Amino acid sequence: MNTPVMPRPDLDLAARLFDTLYRNSFDGVGITRDTYGSGEQRAHDLIAATARELDLETAQDAALNLYVTLPGRDRDAPRAMTGSHLDSVPAGGNFDGAAGVIAGISVLAGWRRAGYVPSRDVVVMGVRAEESTWFPYSYLGSKAAFGKVARSILELKRSDTQRSLGEHLTECGGSPEQFGRAYLEPGRIARFIELHIEQGPVLVEAGIAIGIVTGIRGSFRYRDARAVGAYAHSGAVPRRNRRDAVRAAALLITALDEDWRRLEEGGRDLAITIGKLSTNPAQHAFSKVAGEIDICIDVRSLEARTLGEVDALLAQRVREIGAATNVSIVLGERSGSDPALMDATIQSEMGAAAKRRGIATRMMASGAGHDSAVFAQMGVPTGMIFVRNDFGSHNPDERMEMADFELGAVLLADMLSK
Amino acid sequence: MNTPVMPRPDLDLAARLFDTLYRNSFDGVGITRDTYGSGEQRAHDLIAATARELDLETAQDAALNLYVTLPGRDRDAPRAMTGSHLDSVPAGGNFDGAAGVIAGISVLAGWRRAGYVPSRDVVVMGVRAEESTWFPYSYLGSKAAFGKVARSILELKRSDTQRSLGEHLTECGGSPEQFGRAYLEPGRIARFIELHIEQGPVLVEAGIAIGIVTGIRGSFRYRDARAVGAYAHSGAVPRRNRRDAVRAAALLITALDEDWRRLEEGGRDLAITIGKLSTNPAQHAFSKVAGEIDICIDVRSLEARTLGEVDALLAQRVREIGAATNVSIVLGERSGSDPALMDATIQSEMGAAAKRRGIATRMMASGAGHDSAVFAQMGVPTGMIFVRNDFGSHNPDERMEMADFELGAVLLADMLSK
Repeated sequence: MNTPVMPRPDLDLAARLFDTLYRNSFDGVGITRDTYGSGEQRAHDLIAATARELDLETAQDAALNLYVTLPGRDRDAPRAMTGSHLDSVPAGGNFDGAAGVIAGISVLAGWRRAGYVPSRDVVVMGVRAEESTWFPYSYLGSKAAFGKVARSILELKRSDTQRSLGEHLTECGGSPEQFGRAYLEPGRIARFIELHIEQGPVLVEAGIAIGIVTGIRGSFRYRDARAVGAYAHSGAVPRRNRRDAVRAAALLITALDEDWRRLEEGGRDLAITIGKLSTNPAQHAFSKVAGEIDICIDVRSLEARTLGEVDALLAQRVREIGAATNVSIVLGERSGSDPALMDATIQSEMGAAAKRRGIATRMMASGAGHDSAVFAQMGVPTGMIFVRNDFGSHNPDERMEMADFELGAVLLADMLSK
Repeated sequence: MNTPVMPRPDLDLAARLFDTLYRNSFDGVGITRDTYGSGEQRAHDLIAATARELDLETAQDAALNLYVTLPGRDRDAPRAMTGSHLDSVPAGGNFDGAAGVIAGISVLAGWRRAGYVPSRDVVVMGVRAEESTWFPYSYLGSKAAFGKVARSILELKRSDTQRSLGEHLTECGGSPEQFGRAYLEPGRIARFIELHIEQGPVLVEAGIAIGIVTGIRGSFRYRDARAVGAYAHSGAVPRRNRRDAVRAAALLITALDEDWRRLEEGGRDLAITIGKLSTNPAQHAFSKVAGEIDICIDVRSLEARTLGEVDALLAQRVREIGAATNVSIVLGERSGSDPALMDATIQSEMGAAAKRRGIATRMMASGAGHDSAVFAQMGVPTGMIFVRNDFGSHNPDERMEMADFELGAVLLADMLSK
């Protein structure tokens, strides 16, 4: 079998879109495309306007996810889908999420220009609300597209504005009354392929441009854990009388770090992160023992049993350290997501397509969560293409080379044209 | 020798002043009398107005410290002084500092009403800027009164407003041009006696109302220490590749806590406090490894050599943990104060006076710093009276009983009338 003659993705368009997105969302430090806020909205507006210029069909669902469709020869056949999210963490990078949407648009643009009509509809989805740092809920946008989000979530507050999802949705032109209605049917989706930058150093260290994802880590989070002791004068209260919230937090963090080391040495897949840690700015002082501290705990694993074991271990540490320091540690509400495996057939197809193109790949798990996990859990045959990216993501320094992006987009086109 | 017939301190006035101070400075959580801000200023205005109503002399120095004088029979004799500070930490308590000023005023008011004229001038000082949480400088007000503060300090920024001491001084009616001029001469002060609430649980646990202070702890502080690593995706970056600032801070805090335990078991006087600890709210997220964290370190001891040893130990920990975590820990600017001993003669006089009055006392070191340290270091014979106080200080819950305050004020009157 020869390599099919496939029109090239439009990489000039892709470069222009990355530039415009960057200019639209630079915050002085990095990129901020706030979920259901002006940052994310500008990105959706840009992609929708580009799609209209290309004479592609556009649609929105009740959660304001964006769908850009190139009609195929058989419009009734289950569609091939691709896409990723258009929001970002605060002060993040330009490629995380957006690369997947722009890759899809560049594929459709190349096909449109060349007059190539695929056998079935091909849809690029611009997903809302993937970065749950804004609304504390995993995969809000893609779950809502499948009607899997309870309407009570409209009350959820955005972490920075403290205003509700319902308010933010309305501001972006949505209707809270419609929210929650399913738009996607799993049986009508032939496959979902997401291109995303790798967010760790694995491909860079291996010197390989493209990763084929085997599975996506699940997680649990305690975003609002708190240690509460008692404020006291730093000089006047003896060690034995203290109820020092900072001390309790430090002991908990070092204990969890040691647990992680031990479990990882035992062969478990695991990542434990305390990304946010803060005494109360309204009450703390250098001359006060801290009476409270906020702690944000994020635990990820490919293995459901490891997540369960670490959660139990965390509860035990909280009891032990709370008792030892006379500080009350309250984990608070738990959120999270299940691990998800990528479709085996798609993985091997992807490997074969890359081989035909002469693209070196590496099979790898995804440490970070992606909307692909939702498609996989809904029973859609799902695959992910990772593109090499230096300096990680969720920070302003992420760096993806356009040459690597091109390899990913070419592979994506192959996977969508099947 | 009989107990001298001494007019009683005016405790009704004292109670009214505490009430008014409380109402003037309640912030919704606790008491805030911000240094060289409206909170401290209202307290100074209240005491000055009260002094004028009592027909006492009032004066201010260039740093806006307040002096309230009851003229004695010999106006040229070295004066007896008392007083304390009128500022508070944010969300602190009503008695910390203010009790010493109100005790002095209640003594002078009682004497004035009874027509009692002391042998020499007796001066109550309302000291500025003792709570160095606002301006990072120890004993700013009392040092300025002795002309021991360099004028460059006018550039110092207040931690909350980020505006300079010069600006704040001007707003309170002061003149930056005058600042730094000495007002007090050590040779013209016969003694300085400061009444202050105890800020720890020692007197409450002992069931004794009054403490006689033997010495005041010195300190060193790194208020702006920082650990800087690299932001990274919490799920995608393996453990070995992380440069996690939170992990580095937690290891440092637990190591210092262990050092403290060990040194204290070895008989050293020591207190180590991390009162402020915070990842960067503009960049942190639950899904990011933290790339930076601010750490505020406060170390206190009665022993100069212990302070020196702990400082060296801290530098060693910073090196070790920085290297082990690939995080750069920078301690930044060091501030602090020397330990100060109270005058031995005054301590024994105070013990004898208490005994005559039937007041049980306990000799004790002060873990917290006080302006008395400056008077002692300037060579003024200095003593301190601690008043029992529950729930510590630097928090809204401090509780001093007026019956205990009365015992302290009576003892203060004895010490000022000598």
